[in-house]
Amino acid sequence: MPKVLVKTSDRLLDAGLALISQDGLSGVTLGRLADQVGMSKSGVFAHFRSKVEVQIALLDHSSKLVGPLVLEPAMREPVGLRRLCALIESWFGWAPRAGLPGGCPVAAAMFELDDVEDGPVRDKVLEMERGFRELLGQLVRDAIATGELRAELDVEQLVWELCGIYLGHHVSSRFVRDPEADARARVAVQALLERAKP
Amino acid sequence: MPKVLVKTSDRLLDAGLALISQDGLSGVTLGRLADQVGMSKSGVFAHFRSKVEVQIALLDHSSKLVGPLVLEPAMREPVGLRRLCALIESWFGWAPRAGLPGGCPVAAAMFELDDVEDGPVRDKVLEMERGFRELLGQLVRDAIATGELRAELDVEQLVWELCGIYLGHHVSSRFVRDPEADARARVAVQALLERAKP
Repeated sequence: MPKVLVKTSDRLLDAGLALISQDGLSGVTLGRLADQVGMSKSGVFAHFRSKVEVQIALLDHSSKLVGPLVLEPAMREPVGLRRLCALIESWFGWAPRAGLPGGCPVAAAMFELDDVEDGPVRDKVLEMERGFRELLGQLVRDAIATGELRAELDVEQLVWELCGIYLGHHVSSRFVRDPEADARARVAVQALLERAKP
Repeated sequence: MPKVLVKTSDRLLDAGLALISQDGLSGVTLGRLADQVGMSKSGVFAHFRSKVEVQIALLDHSSKLVGPLVLEPAMREPVGLRRLCALIESWFGWAPRAGLPGGCPVAAAMFELDDVEDGPVRDKVLEMERGFRELLGQLVRDAIATGELRAELDVEQLVWELCGIYLGHHVSSRFVRDPEADARARVAVQALLERAKP
């Protein structure tokens, strides 16, 4: 691909990610994306053939931010409870730290796409959500293996509750704008992990 | 107001509530509402003067469903922990039990309106969310007064965590379609209440 096209594609992805972070997936159309980067709609069409293709590309683009910002800090910690806690710490509030003007696009998409028909965008968000839950589950199992969490722990239940705390923190920090949101989330996570200790 | 107008207004509110339950507040426009009830756009305009006015009327309309379905069953229980548990039980999953085709409109609106500018619709959802948290807080304080929960309990923290479990249950039941969603929510609520007991 010629260099100029690659650069335009990056500009489109960055502008589109800012849009979905603020307005949700339905806020992204080829026309609106064209306006954001000062291109014609047919120019955008050279990169993405449909709204669905844009939305999936933007969800993939958001995943790329999660690697260095959320996963890598955790992977630098020793395996076990410290790594799990580091992941939780870097996961909560990652979207504004990534420079996005709004909140976590996946959390918003789960509410936006809960009652829509099955399709490739819904499947993509389901796959991303499942992948992250599997990662959390693996780190919990590692902390069981190191003896820091109980052997008979219901791993899926712990992960389920963590995801609820994450959503509560999203609403509290972004919608309610509660200055205590971070502190409340920490107390909740700490209590959940205490319950899980031997 | 002539009877026929009242009836049309109810039809508009019911159709609009079904729309926001499935597609969110942004899914409701005067035009789409007109299509749903087989009226002209100017006919709808006789009832609501703007999209904002419709959205606020629909949020009010959803509150009316919450009374008999969520609040009344709780108020029939004796004051204290039993009333609090009854409220939680009737709150989780109330929207499909109310016959709505989608999920809780307020939960979805909190993600839809988190990053939008301040305005009357955002204020309305904030007020509804705050009102429900205050009710939960009151029932928790009642359960402290009856000695069933700890006197030194951080009431706001408990309510904060309950709201997170509610959001986790929304995603788990509606987006992930996990058949275990209700059971997982019950375990989480039970553990939260155990932590709060003397």
